[in-house]
Order: sequence, then structure tokens, then C-alpha cells
Amino acid sequence: MAGTDKTRAESIADGPAVILVEPQMGENIGMASRAMLNAGLGDLRLVRPRDGWPNPKARSSASGADAVIDGVRVFESTEAAIADLTRVYAATARPRDMIKPVLTPRRGAVEMRSAIGGGEKVGVLFGGERAGLENDDIALADTVLQAPLNPAFSSLNLGHAVLIVTYEWYQSADETPPAQLPEGRTRPATKDELVNFFERLESALDNCGFLHVLEKRPIMVRNIRSIFQRANLMEQEVRTLHGIVSCLTRPQSDGKP
Amino acid sequence: MAGTDKTRAESIADGPAVILVEPQMGENIGMASRAMLNAGLGDLRLVRPRDGWPNPKARSSASGADAVIDGVRVFESTEAAIADLTRVYAATARPRDMIKPVLTPRRGAVEMRSAIGGGEKVGVLFGGERAGLENDDIALADTVLQAPLNPAFSSLNLGHAVLIVTYEWYQSADETPPAQLPEGRTRPATKDELVNFFERLESALDNCGFLHVLEKRPIMVRNIRSIFQRANLMEQEVRTLHGIVSCLTRPQSDGKP
Repeated sequence: MAGTDKTRAESIADGPAVILVEPQMGENIGMASRAMLNAGLGDLRLVRPRDGWPNPKARSSASGADAVIDGVRVFESTEAAIADLTRVYAATARPRDMIKPVLTPRRGAVEMRSAIGGGEKVGVLFGGERAGLENDDIALADTVLQAPLNPAFSSLNLGHAVLIVTYEWYQSADETPPAQLPEGRTRPATKDELVNFFERLESALDNCGFLHVLEKRPIMVRNIRSIFQRANLMEQEVRTLHGIVSCLTRPQSDGKP
Repeated sequence: MAGTDKTRAESIADGPAVILVEPQMGENIGMASRAMLNAGLGDLRLVRPRDGWPNPKARSSASGADAVIDGVRVFESTEAAIADLTRVYAATARPRDMIKPVLTPRRGAVEMRSAIGGGEKVGVLFGGERAGLENDDIALADTVLQAPLNPAFSSLNLGHAVLIVTYEWYQSADETPPAQLPEGRTRPATKDELVNFFERLESALDNCGFLHVLEKRPIMVRNIRSIFQRANLMEQEVRTLHGIVSCLTRPQSDGKP
């Protein structure tokens, strides 16, 4: 885990702080820490954690995200926890009686990147397990983050709520291609390699009589070629298929065809 | 929670199944169930759960996602658990020695929607807490799903891994505008309402002498207008501001200006 400290050092300057207001279960604080480090974030702040701090259950549930746990700061009030920030988001259901913009976590992550890129210090408030954020805490935030979820069952576990926000934060700057060719010591087969194999296979099938009905031969050949075409074969796999045809057409035990 | 059963009934036909292979902790099975119902999914299958089934810890950690827990099916092998499916994804790190396409969960969700829309039955395999999916399980899948995460700390909690896939599933068809105006009984203020307030305020500031330096008046007016302009005021808020100016300019106690 040598890379972890480096990641944390980067993240404290670069990413949003996570502020848990009156969290109850150490397990959820630990899971939130793990979700943060999964996304390269390290600045975790707790407001009046029910079971005090440090909390051994939080550390064990963090499953190795010790860099986050070690850096936790505890505050007596939400105001104190956000004092150094310039922009604050509240992860909560849309407030009924407050006029405040509501963003999806996906859009929120893009906005946070832009704000942090412009030198702002950003944080996200999460409420405790029982009742979530109180209105006075939401009022301290500039913007509400609300994840689109099943309206009949939208209450998120605290660690899950943190994960959605930190996961979207990471995705918003990630450049992984959404679909990738498999890596390894091989490469996609060329059409020439593919056609060579087709002709080899069709010759073997002519020999064994599989393609003996001449008027059906063209459609059967096309159907068989389609199967292998659709498989997006790699060069190595074409060689494997050549080997299979060789083996299946090899003379048995007595050495004669 | 009246909507829950309906949601589940819809989801079993419409969404991917979640298959946990050798899950260990009931808490994680429960959290996975909750994450599924958060995304409107209901088909949970377990392969050789360590602590057997039913599992009281799973039910309590599901926090009300009873519809998922009640519908769990247990299988002796991964092959049996996926027997009725036509397309299977494996949520795992990219396999080193297997030629298999790798998608982000975001792209995977779009592909699943398309497959299910075309009548396919889809499922996602997740490995147990200790070692994840074995190569033989991955080999049963058509495609690997790998979430882009901090490469120095990419191991996800099992419930979190399920959440990322189910959350992306839900987002892939959700039409919530990424940024919303606050709802309620008010509406954005018109420019006419805004300018009326500006003129009212500036008149009051003229009266009290705040704008008395004539050569500075235009820039001060512009700066003050900018403050309120930037606030994207609602009609109700403009009325509140009128009230504030009225109150602050009202003659005190003795009834005289």
C-alpha cells in the first residue's frame, strides 16, 4: 500500500472534504473512509460523532484506508467544520421549504472540479444514520446534491451516500475508455489471418463431407464464418483454432487417415 | 413502503440479476439488497453463502429492503445461478490472462439496458469479500465490469461494488435534469421585479446618504446590483428584500422619520 500516502497528500489539496454530521456507527465512518480512498480523497471531518473518536470499529471497517482514519478531524459544530471552506454541498433529499439549487452528484462533481480548479475549498455535508441533515445544516450549504434513485426506496446507507459522491468525483476526471480491448501479449486478428483460418476450416469440412450439398454450401459457409466473425478473435485465438482443426483432422492411433 | 412490491415486480422482469458468489458477511448481503432496491432491482441470487440462508444479519442490514431479501434464491454453483441468463457480466479487476472485453460500469449499464430491451436476460457476478471472483467464474462471463478507481486503493467493499453497478443501472435511464431550480410555490423573479427592487433600494440608499459621493455612485450601484443579480432571486425572495428595506427605513419607536 505504498502509494496510499502519496494519494492522500495529493487529495487533501485537490479534492472535496467529506463532513459527516453526527454519524452514529463506527462501521459507517469506516466504510465512508474506504469509499473516500477508493476515489483518492483524504479529508474526513466528523461533527459530534455519537461514539466519540477514535473509534476502533471505524478503523477495522475502513479495511486499510488508514490514511483517511489517521487524518480525521472532529468538530463541535457544523459551522466550525466548514469554517475554512468557500463552497459547501449538502447530500440530502431536496429540502421542501428552502430555495436552494439541487444538482445530481454527477453534475455536482463537475461543478466541484471547476471550483477547486479555480482555487476554491469545497466540502460535502452528510447527515447521520437516523435523521439525515437538519435544516440548519442544509441552510449552511450553497447547493443540494440529490442522487436520482428509486422513489419508492430512496434512503441510502451513509457509507453508500458517501460512495456515490466520491465515485462521481473520481469519474468526473477519469479518462479510462468506457470499453477496452483486452490487454496482454496478443492483438486483434487481421482479416487476412481470419480468412486464412476460414479457408483452412472449409477445406477440412469439404474433406470430411460436412459441406457436400453443393447448393447449400455458400449459405453454410457464410453462417460458419459469421460465428467466428462475431467473436472478435485475437491473433492468439486464431492460432488456437488452427490447432483445434489440426487435432480434429489428425489420423487416429493407427497413423493412417 | 407501499411502492416497494410494485417496484420489485417491475424490476425482476426489467433489470439485471445480482449474483453474489460465496459471500461471507450477512451485513454485506443486506447492504447489497438495499443498494439493489435503491436502484429498483429485485433479483438477488447467492452461490454458497458462507453462513447459510436465511441470514438475520442480512435482513437487518437491508434496512427495509425486505422485498429483495424475501426473493433471494440460493444455488450450489455459479453455473446453476446463471443457467437462465443469456448475458453475464463479472464485476472484477481486469483478468490478466483471459481475453475478455472490459467495460466501465457506466458503459456496461447502457449495454445492459440495450440487451434487456432486446429481450435478453442479464446478470452480474460479484465475488466474495476475501478473494473476489475466481477465474473459473470470470470465464463464465461475457464481459468484465471494472470501475475506474484510485489505482493505489481500488479494492471495493462488496456492498459498495454492488451499489456502483446498480446506481449506474438506475442513472442510465434516469431523466432527472442534472441541475434543477428549487420547486415550491415560487418562481424565478422577472427582470422587471428585480429592477423595481434595485430602484427602491437605491432610492433608500440615496436618502440615507450611502450613495452621496456622486462620482462613485454609478460604480457602487453596479456593484450592489451585481450582488443581488448573482443570487438568482426568486419572486418570493424579492418580496422578502422589499420587506427588509421597508423595515430598515421605518421610523423607530417614536413614530417619526
